[in-house]
Amino acid sequence: MTEAALKAVRDAGLPKNKIEAIYVGNMSSGPLQGQEHLGALLATWMGVAGVAAFKVEAACASGGAAFYQAFLAVTSGLYDCVIAVGVEKMTDAVTADVTSALIMADDQEYVAFTGASFVGLNALVYRAYLKEFGARQEDIALFAVHDHKYAVNNELAQYRKAIKLEDVLNSPLVADPIRLLECAPIGDGAAAVVLCSEKMVRELDNRDVLVEVAGAAAATDRLSLHDRDSLTTLSATVKAASKAYKMAKIEPRDVDVLEVHDAFTILGVIHVEDLGFARKGEGWKLLKEGELEVGARIPTNTLGGLKARGHPVGATGIYQVYDVVKQLRVQAGANQVDGAEIGVAQNVGGVGGTVVVSVLKRVR
Amino acid sequence: MTEAALKAVRDAGLPKNKIEAIYVGNMSSGPLQGQEHLGALLATWMGVAGVAAFKVEAACASGGAAFYQAFLAVTSGLYDCVIAVGVEKMTDAVTADVTSALIMADDQEYVAFTGASFVGLNALVYRAYLKEFGARQEDIALFAVHDHKYAVNNELAQYRKAIKLEDVLNSPLVADPIRLLECAPIGDGAAAVVLCSEKMVRELDNRDVLVEVAGAAAATDRLSLHDRDSLTTLSATVKAASKAYKMAKIEPRDVDVLEVHDAFTILGVIHVEDLGFARKGEGWKLLKEGELEVGARIPTNTLGGLKARGHPVGATGIYQVYDVVKQLRVQAGANQVDGAEIGVAQNVGGVGGTVVVSVLKRVR
Repeated sequence: MTEAALKAVRDAGLPKNKIEAIYVGNMSSGPLQGQEHLGALLATWMGVAGVAAFKVEAACASGGAAFYQAFLAVTSGLYDCVIAVGVEKMTDAVTADVTSALIMADDQEYVAFTGASFVGLNALVYRAYLKEFGARQEDIALFAVHDHKYAVNNELAQYRKAIKLEDVLNSPLVADPIRLLECAPIGDGAAAVVLCSEKMVRELDNRDVLVEVAGAAAATDRLSLHDRDSLTTLSATVKAASKAYKMAKIEPRDVDVLEVHDAFTILGVIHVEDLGFARKGEGWKLLKEGELEVGARIPTNTLGGLKARGHPVGATGIYQVYDVVKQLRVQAGANQVDGAEIGVAQNVGGVGGTVVVSVLKRVR
Repeated sequence: MTEAALKAVRDAGLPKNKIEAIYVGNMSSGPLQGQEHLGALLATWMGVAGVAAFKVEAACASGGAAFYQAFLAVTSGLYDCVIAVGVEKMTDAVTADVTSALIMADDQEYVAFTGASFVGLNALVYRAYLKEFGARQEDIALFAVHDHKYAVNNELAQYRKAIKLEDVLNSPLVADPIRLLECAPIGDGAAAVVLCSEKMVRELDNRDVLVEVAGAAAATDRLSLHDRDSLTTLSATVKAASKAYKMAKIEPRDVDVLEVHDAFTILGVIHVEDLGFARKGEGWKLLKEGELEVGARIPTNTLGGLKARGHPVGATGIYQVYDVVKQLRVQAGANQVDGAEIGVAQNVGGVGGTVVVSVLKRVR
C-alpha cells in the first residue's frame, strides 16, 4: 500500500508534502489482518502524518468508492491534491478465511447465515442468464480467455499466461455452473492514483501525463439477490453509468477503452450490457464476435481485467483507473488502443449492491 | 442504524426519497458481526436503494469521518441532501471480542501484536500527563463525575446515574492508573444527521430547526504512541481544530458548547487543552473549577459525553453532532445552555491517529 502510494506521488512529479488527504479503499483488513484505521496507518508509513485520511469501504467496490471520495474532496474546492489508494491482502489471513470475509459483502443475517458463498450467489445469476437468454456457457466462459490474452503483456498482472476455452470449461466446478477458471483469483495487491485540482495542475511540470476525471458516480441496489427485480441486470450499474456519462457529456459510443468488474465471467458479459455497449442478453455476442478486442468496437479489460490482472478486492477499483490511465497516456505497450481518448472504469461491490463508474479523458 | 436514519429523515421534514447519498460511520462490523458493505445495507433497509452509499472508517473517529464526507459531498455541489449515520454493535460480537476489535485502531504489526490493549495505551498517556504536569488522578477522574451528572437528564444516555469521585477512584483498576469508571463503556448505538445544501434548505418547511456546518476538518498523527513527539498532546486535534475554526471564522472564546471525545477521563482533559480552552497541562483546573459546567465558561459534554451517554464507537462522532445540535436548537431540556449559538464537536480515532473537528452554528 505504501509502495504504491509513494510510486503514484513520484509519478505525478510531486513532493509528497503536497498531499492533503488520503482515501484508502479496502474491504477486509479488519477480519483478515486485524488492522483497521488504514487512513492514519498509511499517512504514517508514507511519512505525511497530519493530513486528513480515511478508509472507505463498499465491499469489492471499495477502491472505486475511495476514488470517488477523492474526486468529491477535490470537487468540493477544499482540497487541491488528494491520493486514492486501494489495497487488499488476501493470502495472509490471520483471523478469518477469505471466503468468510467475502460473503460479508452480502446481508449477514439473511444470506451469509444460510451458508451461501459469494461464488454461489454468482452461480445463481449465471444460471438465470443462461436460461433467460438462451446463451451457452462456452460463450460466456470466453471472457476468461479474453482477459488472460491481455494479461500476458502486463508486467503487473497476476497471471501472465494465455488460456484456451477448453482449459476453462474443463477446470474444476466451483459452484454449478461456475468453473474455477471463470473466477477472478485471490491475491494481494495495491494501486494508487493522485487527483489534483485544476489550479494545482497548472503548477505541475509534467502536464503531458494528465488525465481528467470527466465524470464519476456511484449507485446502490437492494443488497441481496432475493430482493431484486431481475437477476440478470445490475440496476446500480445502469444508474451509476447514466449519471457518470451525463456528467462527462458522453455516450457509450464515445468510449475508447473499458474496464469492467469481471469477478466471474458472467459478470463481465452482464456489465458490457448494463453499461450500454450491447442490448440486454447480447453481451456474449460482442465477446464472441471479437468486438471487445483491442482494435475492435469497444476494447475491454485490455490489461487483463479481474480474471488475469488479479482482483485484490480493495485495490481493484483503483487498478482499473490505473489501467485506463495507462491507455490514455499511451503507455499500454503491445496492448495499446490507438488514439484512446475516453475511458470508462466500472467497479462493483457485492453482487451489484454498490457500483461506481468513472469516466476518464485524456487531456490534450 | 435504520431506525436512527429514518428518525433523522423524519425530523428534517423530508420525504426519504430526497436522500441522495448515505455515509455510514462504523469501525468494527466486519470483525464483530461478519458484516461489511453497510452503505448498501442501510440503503436497502431504509428503502432508498439506488442512492450512492459508503462506509467510512477511521477507528473511533468513524462517525466524525462519515459526517465529514457527507459535508464534502454537499460542499462539492454534486449532492443536495445527504445522510450521515454512525453505528456500532459491541455487545453481540460474533467473530471476535471487543478488546481485539478495538486494538485494530493501532498498528497490528508493531503494537497490537505485543498484546497491548487500547486502555493500556491510554494508561501510558495518563501516566505521562500526571508526571509532566504534576496533576493528581483525583483531578482528572472528575471528568467521569462531570459526564454522569449531565447524563441523568438525557433520556438517550446509557448511564443516567450520578456518580461521586470516590466511586471512580474506588472502582477496579483496569490498566494502571485507569480505573473502571474512568473508561467510556461498551455499548450498542446509532445516530444520524441529515445535511442539505443551502439550495435545498430553502425548499424546507421547518427552517426553524436549522443548524449550519460552519467549519469541519480532519487531521492525522503518526498512528502509534512510540512514534510521537509528545504523549500529552494530540497534534491531530490541534491541526483539525485550527482548520475548522479558521473555516468557521471563530476562535475558542466564541464557542458556547463543546463535545469532546473522552474515551478515558485523561483524554477529556487533554482535549480541552488541545482545542484551545486551557493552556497545556491546565485542562484539569478548568474541570476542577467548574468551568466546564452548563452556565460556566465552556459547557462541555452537556448530555453525558462518551463516559455516560455512551461510546458505541462508530456512532459517537454523529452522536456528538446530534448533542450539539440539540443545544443549538434549544432542545437540551434541564441541561440547556442559554443562548448557545456556536458548538464544537471533536471526535478521535485510535490514540489520536485521526481527529475530526466540526463547528456548528445556529441559523437565526
